[in-house]
Amino acid sequence: MQRLTDLNPRAQRDHGGGLASAMAQYGGDRTDWLDLSTGINPLPYPVGQLVPSDWTALPDHDAFEALTAAARAFWEVPKSASILPAPGASAVIARLPALATPGRVRITTPTYNEHAAAFRSQGWDVTEDGAADARVIVHPNNPDGRLWQASDVDAVLTVIDESFCDVTPEASLIHLAEKPGMIVLKSFGKFWGLAGLRLGFAIGQPDLVARLNDLTGPWAVSGPALRIGTRALQDTGWADMTRARLAQDAERLDALITSRGAQLVGGTDLFRLYQVDRAADWQDRLARSHIWSRIFPYSETFLRLGLPPSDGWSRLKAAL
Amino acid sequence: MQRLTDLNPRAQRDHGGGLASAMAQYGGDRTDWLDLSTGINPLPYPVGQLVPSDWTALPDHDAFEALTAAARAFWEVPKSASILPAPGASAVIARLPALATPGRVRITTPTYNEHAAAFRSQGWDVTEDGAADARVIVHPNNPDGRLWQASDVDAVLTVIDESFCDVTPEASLIHLAEKPGMIVLKSFGKFWGLAGLRLGFAIGQPDLVARLNDLTGPWAVSGPALRIGTRALQDTGWADMTRARLAQDAERLDALITSRGAQLVGGTDLFRLYQVDRAADWQDRLARSHIWSRIFPYSETFLRLGLPPSDGWSRLKAAL
Repeated sequence: MQRLTDLNPRAQRDHGGGLASAMAQYGGDRTDWLDLSTGINPLPYPVGQLVPSDWTALPDHDAFEALTAAARAFWEVPKSASILPAPGASAVIARLPALATPGRVRITTPTYNEHAAAFRSQGWDVTEDGAADARVIVHPNNPDGRLWQASDVDAVLTVIDESFCDVTPEASLIHLAEKPGMIVLKSFGKFWGLAGLRLGFAIGQPDLVARLNDLTGPWAVSGPALRIGTRALQDTGWADMTRARLAQDAERLDALITSRGAQLVGGTDLFRLYQVDRAADWQDRLARSHIWSRIFPYSETFLRLGLPPSDGWSRLKAAL
Repeated sequence: MQRLTDLNPRAQRDHGGGLASAMAQYGGDRTDWLDLSTGINPLPYPVGQLVPSDWTALPDHDAFEALTAAARAFWEVPKSASILPAPGASAVIARLPALATPGRVRITTPTYNEHAAAFRSQGWDVTEDGAADARVIVHPNNPDGRLWQASDVDAVLTVIDESFCDVTPEASLIHLAEKPGMIVLKSFGKFWGLAGLRLGFAIGQPDLVARLNDLTGPWAVSGPALRIGTRALQDTGWADMTRARLAQDAERLDALITSRGAQLVGGTDLFRLYQVDRAADWQDRLARSHIWSRIFPYSETFLRLGLPPSDGWSRLKAAL
């Protein structure tokens, strides 16, 4: 008897962003707010010139090849691994559970909650530890910046989410992408600061990546994303400069926030996690000055802040 | 025993486009070619102004709501149906087979080949006629322009692909989107001529659309697509003007091509299907003048042409 699949549709999940509801509560319009609730680089890669056909034509095979070649060089992808560009790492995360028959997936918390949600909505059991058929590690982890080891990944299907790894390329586990059952995720929006462009990558063995491609469909990535992504991934000078700047700014943020009695828990150079007495009070205090921060439903003391743009520091200082 | 899913990875499929291989065979670079191999409006909706946050910020809940509201009004979507914006109709097509347990899907050929390929790669049997668990109709059909009736759709899961229906809105079956198991697809790239933007929509009952949303992930649509799509769908004047122009141009193309001995088979105002003696010869003749056309592996006599831009007519005429 044929039937429509009836798995759990996703509940509304807690995310960074949520600026719309902050505005509803604290007033102000979008331009009034300093949004530190995400881990997006506030000094984006320049969008630069586009040509009309970037918008009008079906994304082109050659442009797609140029993007994957640039990605291969930038991330030092093993020769035997394939690369699938997708409209954001989130687009890949939603399809990963279909790569294996549903079973038990191990995801250590706290971490980015889309992984567990995607697996759960597709019939998987999510476990904190113990043996499992699939494993997800977020590397470095969001929100605490924890780094993992190659020895941590051992399941039939293993996902290594390196969305925030471009600030610490030396820690990358990309070499594992040549192992069967392994998928490494890369995000373009965060380090390059162009989250609205929607660009991410899945990297792994050709058969597994071909299967993901089936679930993604042709012409997945927009013409502007192909052009801007290729240009940015070839621009290693910008990447080096940006890493140095982000590292400085992360130190500066730590000095500022810990001077107000917070303790650094961890993070990456794109976001910092602090322990405070009452996170909700901090969020409220900052929000009254129209600065939006990230707190977590599972912790009363965790406060996560992204880096302010150059003109945001004095405002943050005044609001603390 | 847990295992990676091992369904058929997609073979390289025959598509429109393929301009890269045409260039390899006939020379010339992209700017030399007049590409009539697709059904994309050659006079696109103006991209217009974007603001920096369209590129830099995670696509916003409010912007998403504005886009779906504009889509609801433009297509007269039934109140009880939900709308899911996606990065292209293709992104939805790749996920439709997961909406029901694999069985038999009925797809009448000739038609757009991504549907059968997507179902097949996810374990479905594809059949030409007879009873089936799922049904796909492309309405109007590509390449022959055939229109279907509400009485044609009767399966547990029915997909109505209206990618080319915006030139004949009076024929739309959108009212069926309020029925259980029904998904209506809309494409932004073709009628609005912005295929590189990657924007499409799935419309149907809330539970089914929520399931598709699970399989698509959050922030599926880019900031530029949200802004440009919303603006375009609110601009009914442009749509009316464009329909009139496309209808005129389709007539003009028919007159030109049939004057050279071809017979009109059908089509829409975005592409025309002709019967010729030997389609491969026509394609070759046009390609020598760097005009790319569409022929089909299943027919020796079908030639499909999109509409030329205003400066392409004399060139087409000379090449025939």
